[in-house]
Amino acid sequence: VPEKQSIPGLDLHLDLTGGRRPGRVLEEALRAAVADGRLAPGTRLPPTRGLAADLGVSRATVAEVYEQLLAEGWLRARVGAGTWVAQSGVPVPAARAPQAGGPRLADMRGGVPDASLFPRRAWVAAVRRAVDAATVAELGYADPAGVVRLRHALAGYLARTRGVLAEADRIVVGHGVGELLALAGRALAARGARGIAVEEYGHSEHRAILRAAGLEPVALPVDGEGADVSRLAALGVDAVLLTASHQFPLGVPLGARRRRDVVAWADSVGGYVLEDDYDGEFRYDRRPVGTLQSLAPPRIVYLGTASKALSPAVGLAWAVLPDELVAGVLAERAGLSQPRDALNQLALAHLFEAHDYDRHVRRQRAEYRARRDHVTAGLARRVPGARLLGVAAGLQCTVELPMGVDAAAAVAAGAARGLLFLPLDAYAAPGAAPRRPAVVLGFGASLAVRALADADLAVDAIAAATEAADRELD
Amino acid sequence: VPEKQSIPGLDLHLDLTGGRRPGRVLEEALRAAVADGRLAPGTRLPPTRGLAADLGVSRATVAEVYEQLLAEGWLRARVGAGTWVAQSGVPVPAARAPQAGGPRLADMRGGVPDASLFPRRAWVAAVRRAVDAATVAELGYADPAGVVRLRHALAGYLARTRGVLAEADRIVVGHGVGELLALAGRALAARGARGIAVEEYGHSEHRAILRAAGLEPVALPVDGEGADVSRLAALGVDAVLLTASHQFPLGVPLGARRRRDVVAWADSVGGYVLEDDYDGEFRYDRRPVGTLQSLAPPRIVYLGTASKALSPAVGLAWAVLPDELVAGVLAERAGLSQPRDALNQLALAHLFEAHDYDRHVRRQRAEYRARRDHVTAGLARRVPGARLLGVAAGLQCTVELPMGVDAAAAVAAGAARGLLFLPLDAYAAPGAAPRRPAVVLGFGASLAVRALADADLAVDAIAAATEAADRELD
Repeated sequence: VPEKQSIPGLDLHLDLTGGRRPGRVLEEALRAAVADGRLAPGTRLPPTRGLAADLGVSRATVAEVYEQLLAEGWLRARVGAGTWVAQSGVPVPAARAPQAGGPRLADMRGGVPDASLFPRRAWVAAVRRAVDAATVAELGYADPAGVVRLRHALAGYLARTRGVLAEADRIVVGHGVGELLALAGRALAARGARGIAVEEYGHSEHRAILRAAGLEPVALPVDGEGADVSRLAALGVDAVLLTASHQFPLGVPLGARRRRDVVAWADSVGGYVLEDDYDGEFRYDRRPVGTLQSLAPPRIVYLGTASKALSPAVGLAWAVLPDELVAGVLAERAGLSQPRDALNQLALAHLFEAHDYDRHVRRQRAEYRARRDHVTAGLARRVPGARLLGVAAGLQCTVELPMGVDAAAAVAAGAARGLLFLPLDAYAAPGAAPRRPAVVLGFGASLAVRALADADLAVDAIAAATEAADRELD
Repeated sequence: VPEKQSIPGLDLHLDLTGGRRPGRVLEEALRAAVADGRLAPGTRLPPTRGLAADLGVSRATVAEVYEQLLAEGWLRARVGAGTWVAQSGVPVPAARAPQAGGPRLADMRGGVPDASLFPRRAWVAAVRRAVDAATVAELGYADPAGVVRLRHALAGYLARTRGVLAEADRIVVGHGVGELLALAGRALAARGARGIAVEEYGHSEHRAILRAAGLEPVALPVDGEGADVSRLAALGVDAVLLTASHQFPLGVPLGARRRRDVVAWADSVGGYVLEDDYDGEFRYDRRPVGTLQSLAPPRIVYLGTASKALSPAVGLAWAVLPDELVAGVLAERAGLSQPRDALNQLALAHLFEAHDYDRHVRRQRAEYRARRDHVTAGLARRVPGARLLGVAAGLQCTVELPMGVDAAAAVAAGAARGLLFLPLDAYAAPGAAPRRPAVVLGFGASLAVRALADADLAVDAIAAATEAADRELD
């Protein structure tokens, strides 16, 4: 084989040295030449027999290359008429997406985890184990409730770490808490539910999902003991959505008496509690707060996610349902979207079974705790008039600003420093009682070292807004 | 380090030989002992200092093990009070799911692909490349329309192989065609659409999804030229769902005149065509049938999936939308479920970019073609009175049975031979015209060699039902 081969009539040169298979070299050269326009549409290719002889390769090799490029649509052929470059008339887009331009703000919004902590190696290993071990049945259409093996792993994990009373057949796997909230909301609406109480501060996305499900969200006041569930009876709602272990974004856990009260309310009116345990794994200073679910499994829809502990990019979440809601939730799913990502679900099951999930949560907890300590210490030093809420747990805290400081000013000072965080008001439900100006500060700005620097900048932003307010007062 | 260590007071023996890290051995031994009940709830563990000395390992190693098992919920601890086995009161389920028992029928239903053909190695390699190359932004919350890189790869692939006119920003990625049909159906309903024509034979799941979206499915007759779209105007519908390139399950492609007619109808009434190109990659005997989408991109919702060519277990599908439907579809998604599985989507993008997807389609096409040939030849030999429909393409054919043979008898004869396939009637929409008795025979029964044996059994089943009918006639 000579060092540089050329294809007669096409002005294409192939480098067949270096031990690469000649078929692969020819395939790539032809594809690239069509893609970048060197081979114009309509150009006729040499017959396989002649090209094979010219290149000193087998005719089967050339035929195989033509077949592949025909299948990919680069070439066209008709029996007896030869092979030519496709007249696509379609601009073939670049295979790679363009890089998003412009400066990006460091994302310090509440509840957004640090994607740079994702355990890439452990995840690839889990996918490899899952794909190797998958049965042919597991590679087919998945169980509508989610892959059985993952549901078993979740039942064990949730019992051990969160005290959740779950059997695999009451667990439904979804692509995010949002999907499971949509399914549960629709199943409740189908049973006649209309009103649902939501904490007066929380995710507007969740309220939108409940409205789309046909429920009417009603704001429930939140104080130092969490949501005031004594109002539920008067509100006449059929359900309530609670972040009981760490109210989002105010950070208080639901008090012990209120836990008993909300269960008593649900029992007495046949109501349901949707418990969003979004960051239950992240406790720092106090003993774990138990779940509501363990108090009254028949009345609680427990929701959890891998998005915080692992990554949103894994795209898996779970619901533990009361017995009597399982069929309704799966019926709603049949009208929407069956879960199909069995390989993804199996990989997560392997991560749980190898205890890599727990291991990763521990590492993350240490990392977020350090960031939390950093923000807390920085604010205590530089903005002593600020008050911190919700620092005992979770991926964010709420910073009540010193007297006279405007939340918008703090947010703007953050943006000027390259940071994105939001005022507490951004989380207010319609009808929420106004609160002292505050910002919600997440610990998820990416890349461990930068995260601390970003935390310093956030403290600096709040300090700057405070100083500006002080100057105005003078 | 001695060969067998025992933990004082716990009757637990550790094998610290063999080069494994002592911490890992201790961790696994303790976890197993708690899980299987050898260490009862409430059992107090030795202090870290003493156990470390006994085992000849560092105190940090023992503390690390206790920390891990505390995090996993096997142990409990309180400062100053020591560490003990958790009083879970919760039965910890086995980590592995039980194997499903009982004999399983070989799945020869129409449209069900052979999961055993899944390219395990190529998929793991694509996941590894995707995870390695993912930016921190890509590991965070995904674009609501799907990961940009995948949408670019799809735009190129669909243009090359199916002539679809697509830009990345009109592509929406979903977890299956069902999800995308639900979103598109709801977006159309929100614009005021009410009636949607469906082919009189097709997937009942799709009709259920359209009904759940608020649309009313109306059956459209199917003949030798495909769906009779000349009826659309008289039906007064706002949209139509078509399997234009290979009617499911009857197998005819939509005729050239009808293609022009359906586009003219959509233009004249502002209607939409939902084109389910579920197996467009699988052509055997004739030149590719083009897509409707390429005739009228502003009026067609094009739907495709990786479930047939790759595996349902990948769980990804795509829609190419008319410009004016993009916002509506994403608005419906906001009320339901944002796509979160960025890693899965990135892996598929890498598979497209490396041309492994095309390569795999080619191999599969050859395999399914061989199975199709096998069934066709077997039936011609053994049941000459049967008539085959839809064999030019796809993963199934429809077998019209000889005169006097009942479809239920053929299905029962199949079940007696360990095969699952359905009568054509099972696919009939309400109002469908009755047809000659037939069964729909898929080529997806798993494992290449067994698949041919199963095909023989299917032919045998149809032959047996035919002979039984003949005997009755005598």
